[in-house]
Amino acid sequence: MDKKALFAKISQKSSFLCVGLDTDLTKIPEHLLKEKDPIFAFNKQIIDNTIDQAVAYKPNTAFYEALGPKGWESLHKTLEYIPKDVFTIADAKRGDIGNTSGLYAKAFFEMMDFDSVTVAPYMGIDSVKPFLAFEDKWVILLALTSNEGSQDFQMLETKNGKPFFQEVIEKSQKWGTPDNMMYVVGATRGEKIAEVRKLVPDHFFLVPGVGAQGGSLEEVAKFGMNSNCGLLVNSSRGIIYAGKDKDFGKAAKTEAQKLQTEMEILLDKYCK
Amino acid sequence: MDKKALFAKISQKSSFLCVGLDTDLTKIPEHLLKEKDPIFAFNKQIIDNTIDQAVAYKPNTAFYEALGPKGWESLHKTLEYIPKDVFTIADAKRGDIGNTSGLYAKAFFEMMDFDSVTVAPYMGIDSVKPFLAFEDKWVILLALTSNEGSQDFQMLETKNGKPFFQEVIEKSQKWGTPDNMMYVVGATRGEKIAEVRKLVPDHFFLVPGVGAQGGSLEEVAKFGMNSNCGLLVNSSRGIIYAGKDKDFGKAAKTEAQKLQTEMEILLDKYCK
Repeated sequence: MDKKALFAKISQKSSFLCVGLDTDLTKIPEHLLKEKDPIFAFNKQIIDNTIDQAVAYKPNTAFYEALGPKGWESLHKTLEYIPKDVFTIADAKRGDIGNTSGLYAKAFFEMMDFDSVTVAPYMGIDSVKPFLAFEDKWVILLALTSNEGSQDFQMLETKNGKPFFQEVIEKSQKWGTPDNMMYVVGATRGEKIAEVRKLVPDHFFLVPGVGAQGGSLEEVAKFGMNSNCGLLVNSSRGIIYAGKDKDFGKAAKTEAQKLQTEMEILLDKYCK
Repeated sequence: MDKKALFAKISQKSSFLCVGLDTDLTKIPEHLLKEKDPIFAFNKQIIDNTIDQAVAYKPNTAFYEALGPKGWESLHKTLEYIPKDVFTIADAKRGDIGNTSGLYAKAFFEMMDFDSVTVAPYMGIDSVKPFLAFEDKWVILLALTSNEGSQDFQMLETKNGKPFFQEVIEKSQKWGTPDNMMYVVGATRGEKIAEVRKLVPDHFFLVPGVGAQGGSLEEVAKFGMNSNCGLLVNSSRGIIYAGKDKDFGKAAKTEAQKLQTEMEILLDKYCK
């Protein structure tokens, strides 16, 4: 999916919601455990119930990998089930030397038809470029994450007087364009989002930290939105585990609708 | 496997060779493609033929992931086949926020019984610690890699006048110990290995860059060895693709023996 199609979808749904499919056998409603593939059964209902509000779905691969080969089958089935006009993100945080990163790209872009993969920047240019060689596919590069450990290295000052994540953003802009690269930007600090938006006025940000990880949606929109929206805001646990019984799909829908309603107002206010 | 057992294995085999199982369907001998699981059939013969020289095996997960769920099955079978007294490394370069890294740890340490996983440091402490919570399991943290892109960020100078990889090493030493943490240290520059050895006298290094990626074994041993050897030197393509026909196992053995012979001399010379 290209940037134009993504923005069209955002405008059509009046939403920049990404639903995180962090599906965990220990957290899904008990009645699903009788299903042949409980993970897929759960995801299917979540997707059915949030498709009017979600412009993107983001399975985190760790949840599937922890189940062995069966988990990968659930992930494949989930991806096949998501309608093609919705943006898909493999939250995999991969990255290796060039030819090996190329194999990860093949895994996510060819074996599965994901639109994008999250990539870790530590290994530099040749670990990122192989993902950019695929047409209409995206790299979502880790820049500033929202976890405790983001302080350890991402905020470390370089000799240029910049935090390290800024060096990542500045250098990586030469590798990709706003049409094939996005950045992960944590939502816990509004002023930080404003800082990053100044560095990259046109790129999309994937914002992981609204909901369970904290962060205010209004602040994210106020400081991060651009004329193409420029934001995909993720919510995982707050939506997918909103309900604990047979009605979990409806509960997820209600939470997604709440966020979409808020997002519609924010798009009107800040998307210019 | 703990550090004592690993060093005992190194002494017993007079070798610090790690064989990289970067098994690629397009590169294995053609006759294997008729097998039900060509990847496993290939790995099995490589393991059978190198077990006297190898103290560790390191499948890079990208090669298996690129084949979908079937690839993960081949990886599971491979791991089950490797004798338990040999050290195993999931070269996965994972890393995510705390609870999610915990799922990756579960995938590699519980679903499969790997001794260690390579981990990317960018997300900081909570992305690394969950792996360290498993007894007798290891984190092998990316420090200085041997690829072109290692120049982009790993060598960037911080305000403390240190290259970034040094900050990673210094900080991460407080998270783990020489008994549950190793570092990936690229072999293309001997003086760099000496620099890192000064920072971490007791930790094991996984050295990926001998063979196809360049780097001299003598230099690695001279600058990197300590009294517990402290080195696992990997060779992938140079061993596993040494032969192209039915005799590929024997060809692999010959290459592994060459390296082992060299390693035996280097252990005598520098392991003190």
